Order: sequence, then structure tokens, then C-alpha cells
Amino acid sequence: MTRPIAFSGNTLDRDERHRKDEAYLATSLQEDKTRILPVWKLAPLVREGDEKRLAWATPAILDGHGGPDPVFLGVADGRAHFAVDISAHGEPLKEFGWEGAASFPDLRATVGLLPPGDGGIAAQARHIVDWHSRHGFCPGCGEKTRPKDGGWARICTACSSEHFPRTDPVVIMLVTDGERCLLGRQPGWPKPMVSALAGFVEGGESLEEAVRREVREEAGIQVGAIRYVTSQPWPFPASLMIGCEAEAVSRRIQIDPSELESADWFSKDEVRAALEAPTQRLGVPPPIAIAHHLIRAWVGK
Amino acid sequence: MTRPIAFSGNTLDRDERHRKDEAYLATSLQEDKTRILPVWKLAPLVREGDEKRLAWATPAILDGHGGPDPVFLGVADGRAHFAVDISAHGEPLKEFGWEGAASFPDLRATVGLLPPGDGGIAAQARHIVDWHSRHGFCPGCGEKTRPKDGGWARICTACSSEHFPRTDPVVIMLVTDGERCLLGRQPGWPKPMVSALAGFVEGGESLEEAVRREVREEAGIQVGAIRYVTSQPWPFPASLMIGCEAEAVSRRIQIDPSELESADWFSKDEVRAALEAPTQRLGVPPPIAIAHHLIRAWVGK
Repeated sequence: MTRPIAFSGNTLDRDERHRKDEAYLATSLQEDKTRILPVWKLAPLVREGDEKRLAWATPAILDGHGGPDPVFLGVADGRAHFAVDISAHGEPLKEFGWEGAASFPDLRATVGLLPPGDGGIAAQARHIVDWHSRHGFCPGCGEKTRPKDGGWARICTACSSEHFPRTDPVVIMLVTDGERCLLGRQPGWPKPMVSALAGFVEGGESLEEAVRREVREEAGIQVGAIRYVTSQPWPFPASLMIGCEAEAVSRRIQIDPSELESADWFSKDEVRAALEAPTQRLGVPPPIAIAHHLIRAWVGK
Repeated sequence: MTRPIAFSGNTLDRDERHRKDEAYLATSLQEDKTRILPVWKLAPLVREGDEKRLAWATPAILDGHGGPDPVFLGVADGRAHFAVDISAHGEPLKEFGWEGAASFPDLRATVGLLPPGDGGIAAQARHIVDWHSRHGFCPGCGEKTRPKDGGWARICTACSSEHFPRTDPVVIMLVTDGERCLLGRQPGWPKPMVSALAGFVEGGESLEEAVRREVREEAGIQVGAIRYVTSQPWPFPASLMIGCEAEAVSRRIQIDPSELESADWFSKDEVRAALEAPTQRLGVPPPIAIAHHLIRAWVGK
């Protein structure tokens, strides 16, 4: 796979060694050269205009900031980079004077317009900011937790147990039967949009076992050989998409209606045409989705 | 990869549709044919004797059980299978009359002696029982959670948010330079044991980005092409090991002493010899570790 995939390609050095260096982090947050990515209701700030890119602020925006601690994203060009959750502000564009220059657009709708490196940073920032927003308490004892290590852990203020951001592995697989592939539509998706089957890897499962289980459960199809293709971070809220091609060894589709509204076999020619423009019967996922890349790789485009 | 890998090969149908069927679950827990795997301090019960296997109890052991709810593992031969955490019992072997017939051996030390299918069930049981034991409270609001869906979710009794078991993806990669590979020893490992480098995938990272970052951080080596090899569930406590081969494009090792005590290049001949028996300079990981299989695949054995 040589095409860049949305949300990968983060250009920052995550610089793990500095996460535990409180002096470094505190000093960086005093320096004008440090770059702060404001995140509001899980959307990072994006510069308006013909060339959209992430919009960075200086540590000055943290003056009087009563919200969550900034999270250390990493380093580039000798400058520390942080993300900060400013969701507590009602009208941040007005309050910080960003109106007209920047905004908080929906990340799924915008990532395809950002430079690839910015998409990777946006994924990292959204993933970790979301995690902090939903992990203020210790799952072991129910008391409050506080962030540590530049935001890459939380520690319980009562029992001292440490908690780390979670990343949920998801298998997504294009099931193939020679010149045909299996695509399905989840309940609620707009017609004619279909995609590859997908599901979370469960505890005590290998990737291959998860692929076989999901395809059997959702579509009633038995799978033989499985080939890993590529992967993608998908921060909605915390997935790691693991893309595979899986050879069907049975053909008769029997869907689980709680998972899929429909599923069918589509020929390479149909899929190639739909990659150009949706047909009445078939719309394929857009380029920001790993499924698009799995399909494209399969048809050889 | 054709050799079975420890902890994969679970022979149960996880039967996701029955997880939400409370009548089915309740009825199953009344039936003598139902099989219950006792788990004590995270070790599943194992039958003693020449042919070790998981030891299953009947629902009778749940009479008066005051501990965590049984977790639904799945179905085989028309029988429902559950795991139940009996860690609250001080001397379960004596209390349940299992002395001499079964015990709770260390799972890492025992899995290689179990049939592969039993190793997979043990992984599933340990993973999910451990998760429940550490997630009694809501990370969002700090109030109590209770299990639902046969143990495959917990719901907050106050804010009703749902929580799902976590699975932590880990990349483990054999870094190669033609006829040599890079192996390292973590602080505290017994000499001459070394293994492939490994680390958790972080939020906003693809698998390939995680491989490059970990190899650079731990050993100062730059990586070119990356090839996925195989995967393994590793329930200590909740990992999914994702095994890769990664081609080095630099050679000079510079270790991070907080991660590695030493790292070096080893030739295929040295590694082949160590697979037979540890040498003074080199001991490779045992067959229960995915690293063993990555090494074996690389030397072509």
C-alpha cells in the first residue's frame, strides 16, 4: 500500500522519554515557540482558507485555563507540541478571537482536506483528549484519577493504580470469492453505500480468529486464507483498524439482521465502476476509510 | 504460519447472539450439562495427570456463590460454557473437593501442556475475568457498574454508560538485516535470554508507525519494509500480540536503558543453534511466545 491513509502519517516525534520529565513539560508550556492544538468538543482547530491545516495556538491560551491539563503530543522542529481540551468554553472562536481565521469543523469531513501529517496529529489529539474526558475516575475503586506522564497515563488519587489510554483493535476484511467480493450495509446507512465487514477483536482472540468469527456471525460465510493488507488509526473514539483480505470458502450469504441490513457479492467490474462514481446498486466508502483502500487494492487500481 | 500458537485455537463458538438473551443464560446456569470453568486468582482450574486439560465443573459450584457473576464463554457440543471467578475462596481445592484431581497452576507454565483449544479458552477466560475484577466502577462518574450481556459489557448503575472489555494491541517485531536479526534483553530477564522488540500501539498510530517508533526508541534503529507475520492473544492481562518482520535500514544500535539492558545482532546460524538449546550468548523465547514463532519463521525452521 503506497497511498497515504487518512489519520496516519503523524509528523511529530512522540518523544516518549520527555513524557515523564516534568521540568521539561513545565518549561515548554512557558515558551512562546511551543505549539498548542485547541480541541473543542473533540474537534481540533483548523485554519480556514484554501489550504486547510491544523491551527496552532501559543501557551498564552492557557492563561486562566480551568479545564483539563494539556496533553504532550511530541516534538517537531525543536518545538514541543500539546493538545488541550477547551470544551468548557461556550464560544471559543469568539472568546479567543479566531473567528474568520479558524474553526472546529467535523474531523471526518475535514481530514481529507488536511496535509497527511496533520491528519495523523488530529487522530492522536482526538484519541487522547477523548480518553481523558471519560476517565476521570478509577475503574478499580471509583475515586478520582489525575493525569501524569504528560497525559499518557492517569493515576488514582486513592489506590494509586495506573491507567493507560485504550486502543481498540478492529478487524475489517474484504471477503473475496475469486472475481467477486462481499460488501454489506449496516442498518441506517444511506443506500447504495456498502462496505467491508468489520468488528472488534475480543479478549483471547487472534486477528485471524476475529476475522473468521465476524464474517461467520455477520454474513454466515466461512473464510479460508486471510492476508493482512494495511492498518489505520480511527479515533472515533479509539479504534485501530486492521485491514485484511479473506478468501471465502462458502458462498451462501445469511446475514445477522442486527448487524447488517443487507450483504451481497459484487464483481470487480461493478466495484471498479463504483470507485469512479456510485451506481444505483453500489456506492463504495470514501478514501478516508480503510475499506476504500482494501477495495482499491483488490481491484488493482 | 501453520504451527498452532499458544492461547489461540479456542474451540468454543462465542455465540454472540446469546449474550443478550437473559432467559437463555439463566436457563443454562440451571442445567447439569452446562460447563463452568473455575478461575482462582486468574488461574483456570486444570486437571492433574499425564494429559493435562482444563477442568470443568457443573453449575452446582455456583450454589451460595457470592462472588462475581459467571461470564458466558460460548457453546460447544450444544452445551453452554461459562467462566467464574472464585478468588473469594481461601482454599478452593479443599472446599470443592478437587484436591489431587485438579489444581490452579500458573497459566504461562501450563499452557504448553494443554490441548491448543483449551489454551484458547484459558486465554478468553483469564482476559475477561481479569477485566471484571478491575472494572467495578465507572471511569466516567465513579459510581458502581454491573455486568451485562453475559459478562461482555458493564453498565454504570448511575449514569448508564456502557463499558466494554479492553484489548491492548502490541506490536512485536523481528528486525532483520539480511542474515542477521536484532534481539534484546529487558532489564531483569535472566541471561542469556533475549527476544524480539515489542511495545504497545498508541492512540492515533497505525501498526506500521508503532513498529517504526518502538524500534527507533528502544534500539535507535531505522526500519524500512514491514511485513505482518502472525498474531497471538496474550492474556497478561489483555494484550493482542501482532507479530511482524521489519527490515533495518540502519545498523548501529543505541539502546534506551530504561527499556533494554542490551541488544545485539545475531546470525541465522547462531539463532538456529539456540532454537535447539540455549548457547552461552543466546537463549531464544520458548514456543509459547509469538517471538519464538517469528524467529523460527525467519530462519526457515
